[in-house]
Amino acid sequence: MDTNFASIITIGDELLIGQVVDTNSAWMAQELNKIGIPVKRRVAVGDTWDDIWYALDEESKHASVVFITGGLGPTSDDITKPLLCKYFGGKLILDEPTLEHVKNIFKNILQRPMLDVNIKQAEVPDVCSVLRNDVGTAPGMLFEKEGKIFISLPGVPHEMKWIMTNVVLPLLPTKTKTTNIEHRTLLTAGIGESFLADFIKVEEAALPSFIKLAYLPNSGMVRLRLTATGDNKTEILSLLNHHFDLFKEKVKDYLVTDEDLPLEIVVGQQLRAKGKTLATAESCTGGYIAHLLTSIPGASAYYKGSVVSYDNSIKTNVLNVPKSILQAVGAVSEETVKIMAESVLKIMDTDYAIAVSGIMGPDGGTIEKPVGMVWIAVAKKGETVTKCFNFRHTRERNVQLTAINALNMLRIANCG
Amino acid sequence: MDTNFASIITIGDELLIGQVVDTNSAWMAQELNKIGIPVKRRVAVGDTWDDIWYALDEESKHASVVFITGGLGPTSDDITKPLLCKYFGGKLILDEPTLEHVKNIFKNILQRPMLDVNIKQAEVPDVCSVLRNDVGTAPGMLFEKEGKIFISLPGVPHEMKWIMTNVVLPLLPTKTKTTNIEHRTLLTAGIGESFLADFIKVEEAALPSFIKLAYLPNSGMVRLRLTATGDNKTEILSLLNHHFDLFKEKVKDYLVTDEDLPLEIVVGQQLRAKGKTLATAESCTGGYIAHLLTSIPGASAYYKGSVVSYDNSIKTNVLNVPKSILQAVGAVSEETVKIMAESVLKIMDTDYAIAVSGIMGPDGGTIEKPVGMVWIAVAKKGETVTKCFNFRHTRERNVQLTAINALNMLRIANCG
Repeated sequence: MDTNFASIITIGDELLIGQVVDTNSAWMAQELNKIGIPVKRRVAVGDTWDDIWYALDEESKHASVVFITGGLGPTSDDITKPLLCKYFGGKLILDEPTLEHVKNIFKNILQRPMLDVNIKQAEVPDVCSVLRNDVGTAPGMLFEKEGKIFISLPGVPHEMKWIMTNVVLPLLPTKTKTTNIEHRTLLTAGIGESFLADFIKVEEAALPSFIKLAYLPNSGMVRLRLTATGDNKTEILSLLNHHFDLFKEKVKDYLVTDEDLPLEIVVGQQLRAKGKTLATAESCTGGYIAHLLTSIPGASAYYKGSVVSYDNSIKTNVLNVPKSILQAVGAVSEETVKIMAESVLKIMDTDYAIAVSGIMGPDGGTIEKPVGMVWIAVAKKGETVTKCFNFRHTRERNVQLTAINALNMLRIANCG
Repeated sequence: MDTNFASIITIGDELLIGQVVDTNSAWMAQELNKIGIPVKRRVAVGDTWDDIWYALDEESKHASVVFITGGLGPTSDDITKPLLCKYFGGKLILDEPTLEHVKNIFKNILQRPMLDVNIKQAEVPDVCSVLRNDVGTAPGMLFEKEGKIFISLPGVPHEMKWIMTNVVLPLLPTKTKTTNIEHRTLLTAGIGESFLADFIKVEEAALPSFIKLAYLPNSGMVRLRLTATGDNKTEILSLLNHHFDLFKEKVKDYLVTDEDLPLEIVVGQQLRAKGKTLATAESCTGGYIAHLLTSIPGASAYYKGSVVSYDNSIKTNVLNVPKSILQAVGAVSEETVKIMAESVLKIMDTDYAIAVSGIMGPDGGTIEKPVGMVWIAVAKKGETVTKCFNFRHTRERNVQLTAINALNMLRIANCG
């Protein structure tokens, strides 16, 4: 098998000083995988002529398709376009369709006059094919050199995604050989990574060489991913599914889902299938559980809303937690989350309610109630389940772990 | 000036298929910048022997300090440790302090029996210095070869961060020459990137060569960053501050903050300084504004809570929006957000309230109310300001833009 690989070069000093997190590369890698062009390397370099030039030379040794994102803005810290011009031996010319498009954006959408720098955005090297960008002013560019394809895209995520989806991904399979890459994923809960590895060692040892197993631990759960690569799609799919079923049967007592989905989607699908509704009452997670649930399109079918009772007065006034309870056992207590869950269940008139209260840090911990201590309640009519957790990580991670464990408690409650 | 650079190699197939976003590198780059070791390149490669080996060779050409993160878990898809052993010409030995530490974690924290694979986590190449990991079972390792330093760290973010903070960052300046890298940032709102570039061209042209200017547009705002690099800290700081003041004076009408802070911190500082409190009523953002605000430690000093009224029944029953209003003008309307804001202001007894209602997509848009249309209200006693926006991006971006613009409206309301 002779696979054509891609490499992704991301340009920008902000990546090297850590001012922004690169989410573009992960999305691009996912989409390239789907059309059968695996990504071999990803490289980030600064806005420096020599470093970009070197990266183009270097990555084209590893890959048949080299992507370059970033460095195409209208300001003078962006040097990518003149560099690409020189690298591929062309000269900058004004692309009329792009100029028309830029003019149109300024006239109809931005409703502002154009500047000279904006006209420059319609200039492209004469040795490239222009890749249309309907949602921004910087077009993508495709170059070919010594049998390799180079694709330059703007770094603004929604512009990059638009050009990839509408232009690049349909085009690439007509320009380069693709292979089949198939993934199957199992999400498990309640068993640690090393125990899981020991538990499935027979199934792992039986895998053929073209199927790889990966362990992806996250937030107290472990995702198992099987990846098969090969030219004969029917053959690799058949063997992948066979082995996938063996793993699935083996881990069935720990299985959350056999699809590559986050827990908020799994829980949403389960609620929708059973025709149940959900509300949340959040103290320490401050709306993060509501945010996770509502990040899924269509969540309004099962999720009604949340009371974020960050301040104790909201627990008392909106969620009817008696002041006497707060005084006697505190906001981070079984009693408090139980009343929070039962109150929001009634207020929002839902089938289920989740409530959380805890100490996320970095401050606010005591000996009895250290940072990371969280009470979670899941209520339905006539029954409330509560559980105490101790996460003891950073604030951000404590919030994530609280949300994931709350959703998992709901999943288990809604299983029966 | 002869700068010592770092390079960061991230290992893991999950990065190349886009299953996870690499947040480690950005954090590491930030911290390395602070101690004066700029990052020159970041590379991600898969769990493949040849690719990791090649990356070690290649990155040590570019950098004095090469970081390797990931690939140190207890399962058999992790090949980094045997590879490092071979690369640096050592053999694996059991590190007694690490073994004691791993045993202790299993006995006292996990309260589970240890497996053979866990004992293997205490094995290290005999040619490395062990970097203590108090929060996990995989220690970090430091190697030296031909004048270069190589540091291998686990990929689990909170373990990597612990080792960096407590061991690596204090150690590095004693092992390698560092330089001074100083940043100053201005966050602007209400002026586009190209207009801003035109507006400050005189100040930009006056910058000395060792100070670089970058434009970082995001969510309708533009961040300007000045970066000075040099060996004489007093000298570069003095000139950086001089030029920073010129830029700050020039953009003063658009200035949000002269610190490198996200808007949720700027707004929080402003509320705290004025002794004001805030509540939110969120429909389309589904708790995201509450989440942003409560991601900041100490937010409870000014933020009381939120009613996430995702379902219209919550708008009616909890936020007192009359059914007649919802029927006449709909949930996405000036009337609705005005009542939502004024109700939550009263219910939570705060000085300010934000309310948002809109259509985030991908579905739910109509000709009159397309996807991306959002009404935002900011209320204080006796006065409510409302504004309509049309974002027309993806669901995720529409939510972010709504949150940022709502916080910016609050900032302006609270300025006077």
